[in-house]
Amino acid sequence: MTSTTSQTADVLVLGGGPGGYVAAIRAAQLGFSVTCIEADKTLGGTCVTVGCIPSKALLQSSEHYEWLRLHAAEHGVKVEGATVDLPAMMARKTDVVAQNTKGIEFLFRKNKITWAKGFGTLKTGNVVEVKDTDGNVTSWQGKHVIIATGSVPVQLPFLPFDEQRVLSNVGALQIPEVPKHLIVIGGGVIGLELGSVWRRLGAKVTVVEFAPTILPGNDDDVIKEADKILRKQGLEIHTGTKVTGADVRADGVTIHAEKDGAALSFDGDYVLVSVGRKPSLSGVDAAALGLALGQRGEIAVNDQMRTNLPNVFAIGDVVGGKLLAHKAEDEGVIAAEVIAGKPVHMHYRTMPGVVYTWPEIATVGLTEQEVKASGRAYRVGKFPFSANGRARTMGETQGFVKFVVDKDSDEILGCHMIGPHVADNLAQVVLAMEYRGSAEDIAITVHSHPTLSETVKEAALSALGRALHM
Amino acid sequence: MTSTTSQTADVLVLGGGPGGYVAAIRAAQLGFSVTCIEADKTLGGTCVTVGCIPSKALLQSSEHYEWLRLHAAEHGVKVEGATVDLPAMMARKTDVVAQNTKGIEFLFRKNKITWAKGFGTLKTGNVVEVKDTDGNVTSWQGKHVIIATGSVPVQLPFLPFDEQRVLSNVGALQIPEVPKHLIVIGGGVIGLELGSVWRRLGAKVTVVEFAPTILPGNDDDVIKEADKILRKQGLEIHTGTKVTGADVRADGVTIHAEKDGAALSFDGDYVLVSVGRKPSLSGVDAAALGLALGQRGEIAVNDQMRTNLPNVFAIGDVVGGKLLAHKAEDEGVIAAEVIAGKPVHMHYRTMPGVVYTWPEIATVGLTEQEVKASGRAYRVGKFPFSANGRARTMGETQGFVKFVVDKDSDEILGCHMIGPHVADNLAQVVLAMEYRGSAEDIAITVHSHPTLSETVKEAALSALGRALHM
Repeated sequence: MTSTTSQTADVLVLGGGPGGYVAAIRAAQLGFSVTCIEADKTLGGTCVTVGCIPSKALLQSSEHYEWLRLHAAEHGVKVEGATVDLPAMMARKTDVVAQNTKGIEFLFRKNKITWAKGFGTLKTGNVVEVKDTDGNVTSWQGKHVIIATGSVPVQLPFLPFDEQRVLSNVGALQIPEVPKHLIVIGGGVIGLELGSVWRRLGAKVTVVEFAPTILPGNDDDVIKEADKILRKQGLEIHTGTKVTGADVRADGVTIHAEKDGAALSFDGDYVLVSVGRKPSLSGVDAAALGLALGQRGEIAVNDQMRTNLPNVFAIGDVVGGKLLAHKAEDEGVIAAEVIAGKPVHMHYRTMPGVVYTWPEIATVGLTEQEVKASGRAYRVGKFPFSANGRARTMGETQGFVKFVVDKDSDEILGCHMIGPHVADNLAQVVLAMEYRGSAEDIAITVHSHPTLSETVKEAALSALGRALHM
Repeated sequence: MTSTTSQTADVLVLGGGPGGYVAAIRAAQLGFSVTCIEADKTLGGTCVTVGCIPSKALLQSSEHYEWLRLHAAEHGVKVEGATVDLPAMMARKTDVVAQNTKGIEFLFRKNKITWAKGFGTLKTGNVVEVKDTDGNVTSWQGKHVIIATGSVPVQLPFLPFDEQRVLSNVGALQIPEVPKHLIVIGGGVIGLELGSVWRRLGAKVTVVEFAPTILPGNDDDVIKEADKILRKQGLEIHTGTKVTGADVRADGVTIHAEKDGAALSFDGDYVLVSVGRKPSLSGVDAAALGLALGQRGEIAVNDQMRTNLPNVFAIGDVVGGKLLAHKAEDEGVIAAEVIAGKPVHMHYRTMPGVVYTWPEIATVGLTEQEVKASGRAYRVGKFPFSANGRARTMGETQGFVKFVVDKDSDEILGCHMIGPHVADNLAQVVLAMEYRGSAEDIAITVHSHPTLSETVKEAALSALGRALHM
């Protein structure tokens, strides 16, 4: 026997990923009653359960293993034998994910946010019908609705995910053994991160990328350095290579491809398909609702995250742009504050992006080629980690920091880093860009010695033609 | 047979440590002919040869060893047996130091800076007499002189350094064996860093501190957390304990002390005396020169690093204040730019400080107790690493970020961190303070997810009463 009931809330948030749960918290902070609808067993969405968090747990563990294998001896640490205990590594990953999902549940209780567990369907008039696993339906009437339904991985038509041999991010985070040969289709963030994990653990990893380079869209210098470093680490990379077909067997896959007119094929035991993600309109019938979409199927929003429907907002991957948890979070905060009548808006000029390979890649603003194409006069500053004292003490001297600044005003237009812990060191540049700051602002600021952050200062000095340590 | 010759330069820099060599580089960049006088076999001074750099090399290696011992299993990395190969660890440290000292020599050649090798004595009339190891004397006449003679460790009168059993930072960086019991007198930066190295490598380490707490002068919350964490790691810490005497034997030392009127004694095989450093006036006869000194024997300077003597500047540890390489470097840049007629001056409001224990401690600006004592109305924001996703993936969840901000204007007055990689994450706060920025500036800036830098954003949000993840 199932039931149908009705409830109300000031704000309904459809989806409990990083965009949705943060929007819910911010709305609750602002005094609204909030209900967040999420069908998964846990809150946190892709990022927390099958994305950022579990991948970083595995990246961390596998980085340690790689360090041990390659660098322990030179540091004076003698190790008899080091092996991977994959079940333990996976159990730790699961535990880290649980810490985070339980953390969000705690935040919901603390902020008195209702988690409506079940599949939500948006109806006209700001109603979300939530159907739980027993078939009970609750009809939630909201004054405002925030759609945060996220994104799903793109499938190749001839290679549908089975999560056994043909893996999305979900399956690639829980392969039950170290693959002999993992084929990765798509040399973007997800492919390179998860490819790195399995390579470090002992797999042969082959990356097949359709574009002329890995990490398309990044600064050319960073791409070149990343390509060089990742190949040196042992990733086999085929760029400009189009996957044309596949044979999937119970024990493996054969990927057919074409490069410069020549046929290639790759035999592996697993394939990760990481060719992109697309907006998820699960529970949102845009046509029926009259909800306007953009050219790529994303929900169209203005800079206050408003859709074309009154009091209906959308945030996160479902609105397109860069598919990043921190973008979704920020959009969620903006949506909640707009609902509260605050005069805020979203901008993307200072949106950072990170690739958690080792070394890391971190980037914000315009690439050199973008600035060049715009015709604007610019200067470049660059400083290598090999000239940084702390990097030398760590033995982590690969990579560099690169600034692109306006030739006349010195305003920072973009900053692109590859090197140890650059994800953290990018933060000062993002802040400087929020202030519309100059390279000189960073260059004259004292940076602690010996830290990796000095590399950012030196690169800024370099943009002024006066690096001290180069 | 020895010779005496005369030479001239626009700028003479007395001392080749981080203050001196950076001042030399900046002066050369500004078009001056520059000679740097340094008697050591290498450039780099205390920081590069017996300070920051070698200590960080050992901290890095020993951190890896400790991780291996305590955390490898939970990460799924099985290690049969891990032992310390001290000669290899020390050889790597020596190599890292050499990379840095050779790097400075390269920078000198590139910038056409003369390294006058020998002991320099400052004479009246901006002359430095340089005596080399063969007894040859070169008399250098400069238009400007920058004194950068650094500092030396303070000795206890009853416990002079022999660098065999009674160690300064110099000897503690090259103990030929892992001590059974290392006694550390002084629980400041040097004592805690080098104490941590040897504890991780297997020594029992006892820290004896005269002040009521370790790390006196730091923010109280940070001190409490550091004390708790370091004790948990196994450091034995005795605060409020006065060392009253010592017996030094060929194979060890006994330290006599007094706490709350009760006598204590500690038997160890080595003792590190790290009770402070004092300005080094080696080669500078202040009385004869008429050079004005401050109350602690430091050279008195104004905010352009000018001494009371015409065209004589002083920078770095010898002018007192915080004994930090990056402070010395910045003062060196200021001195060189003042010589070039630039309208610059030095300020210390945003001078960061770091303790490279694990977790690290990083701090800038006023402590909460300093702000409180001033009577200014303030707010505090605090966020723990235990609530940060990246810290959880790393398994490094100890510590927090704390802001102290003006109650009304929200201006950041100070920021105090203890946690993983906080030395790098402090950089964004230092920059914000250079802009006289507010907690809100950091709070509304997007921080990449999942990074440790988000902790800084959340602490800033906390200062505004609206942390999202707490």
